[in-house]
Amino acid sequence: MNKSPIGIFDSGIGGLTVVKAIQSALPCEQIVYFGDTARVPYGPKSQITIRKYAADDTAILMRYQPKMIIVACNTVSALALDVVEKSCGNIPVIGVLKAGATFAVQVTKNNRIGVIGTQATVSSNAYACAINALDPDIEVISQACPLFVPLAEEGFINHAATKLVAEHYLREIREQGIDTLVLGCTHYPILRQVIEETIGSGIRIIDSAEAVALKTRELLHDSGQLSRSQKASVPHLLVSDLPQKFSMLYQLFMGSEQPDVDLVEV
Amino acid sequence: MNKSPIGIFDSGIGGLTVVKAIQSALPCEQIVYFGDTARVPYGPKSQITIRKYAADDTAILMRYQPKMIIVACNTVSALALDVVEKSCGNIPVIGVLKAGATFAVQVTKNNRIGVIGTQATVSSNAYACAINALDPDIEVISQACPLFVPLAEEGFINHAATKLVAEHYLREIREQGIDTLVLGCTHYPILRQVIEETIGSGIRIIDSAEAVALKTRELLHDSGQLSRSQKASVPHLLVSDLPQKFSMLYQLFMGSEQPDVDLVEV
Repeated sequence: MNKSPIGIFDSGIGGLTVVKAIQSALPCEQIVYFGDTARVPYGPKSQITIRKYAADDTAILMRYQPKMIIVACNTVSALALDVVEKSCGNIPVIGVLKAGATFAVQVTKNNRIGVIGTQATVSSNAYACAINALDPDIEVISQACPLFVPLAEEGFINHAATKLVAEHYLREIREQGIDTLVLGCTHYPILRQVIEETIGSGIRIIDSAEAVALKTRELLHDSGQLSRSQKASVPHLLVSDLPQKFSMLYQLFMGSEQPDVDLVEV
Repeated sequence: MNKSPIGIFDSGIGGLTVVKAIQSALPCEQIVYFGDTARVPYGPKSQITIRKYAADDTAILMRYQPKMIIVACNTVSALALDVVEKSCGNIPVIGVLKAGATFAVQVTKNNRIGVIGTQATVSSNAYACAINALDPDIEVISQACPLFVPLAEEGFINHAATKLVAEHYLREIREQGIDTLVLGCTHYPILRQVIEETIGSGIRIIDSAEAVALKTRELLHDSGQLSRSQKASVPHLLVSDLPQKFSMLYQLFMGSEQPDVDLVEV
């Protein structure tokens, strides 16, 4: 048993889909969350820049002596997971990418998996590598959807423009005979309904936030590090900019009271 | 006569609309341009963060000993022009915001001016302040259009989704009886056609990039600092991330050869 917090970071609000999934799977765990809202988005940026930001984000979480770190950002999981591992000593690190890839491999029946994500994630080919490391016979078809993050951040969730953008991005991948689609960016579950309607029925959607929560429970259970606290905890929330905006979006997205959010410098 | 360059900075590619206008008005001037592509966009961020970034951006341009600095970013013009002025010694600083505001005041006939910009620019109320400092009887109606920057950056220039987003943002301001609309973000001229079609005929569009070029020519002329070089110069281009992507966008947007772009650290 270990009462230290689980550290989670993302470039912005997207990682809250992971917080929600962790709270649902592990309601007694303490969470410390950092969103790098001063430098969001990471997706359209270079590997060098993303690796620098990943080291900064890990250092901020390490001040809170977490028992493990969850990289809730697919872009960092794809391009800088080794940076996080090197920056946090011996504690375990789980990236959303590997968790989502593993879950997709378990689910596919026809061995054709689609992946949507940011430009950086898709260009890195990291999902295809992770999936093919588990099963080299699986065909992976990827598509970058750069406007999904700003549309989600601006709350254009059921807007007709979002539907048109989804149609633009998903038209080709829909014709590829996939039976599984990985939401390879933690913002995308916010647009899940539009994505599901556009991709069509009969395709299983994989939310990597849910996959990472299952993986986290397994890891903490196997290493005897589950918290035995009896009460549900309020996450400790940190951002690098605009704590008030983050607090409002948290309230909207999590359906909770408006929480305290601390500002930290990067 | 002064052969030193004109320094121009923006959060990303938006300031190229200013470069284009300066080249057109002052073809013999040397330009050094910095785009902070590692931290774009500035518009959804806080005043404290924007002021820190403005000081960094100015310091980068100062290495090239410019004869003046143009703040091509409306968000910085609105929230941190004094930071730029303090960081650059005695050389003149022109912000797109004041130039655009001055031009709009000259143009309006019914004293009702619309302004569209990023969330930070609109929340700062800086356009209304600048316009009312020139003429307190003018009514200013503002509207934030946060998705216009990512749509422009992703090249969704004539896309039906952009038309719908424009309809969403401009519906209310269209009913306000304005005769002049300021494009209060240097990205917006990239979407000018959609904006014009949506706002309707009979409304004069003010591109602050053009306004700032006129103001720059006037300033250099009056202070005897115009360059007398005979040949058109290739701008010296600097970015904080992804020089290759910037070079391609430059080529597309400026209709030129693909230029060299240098990477600098912020």
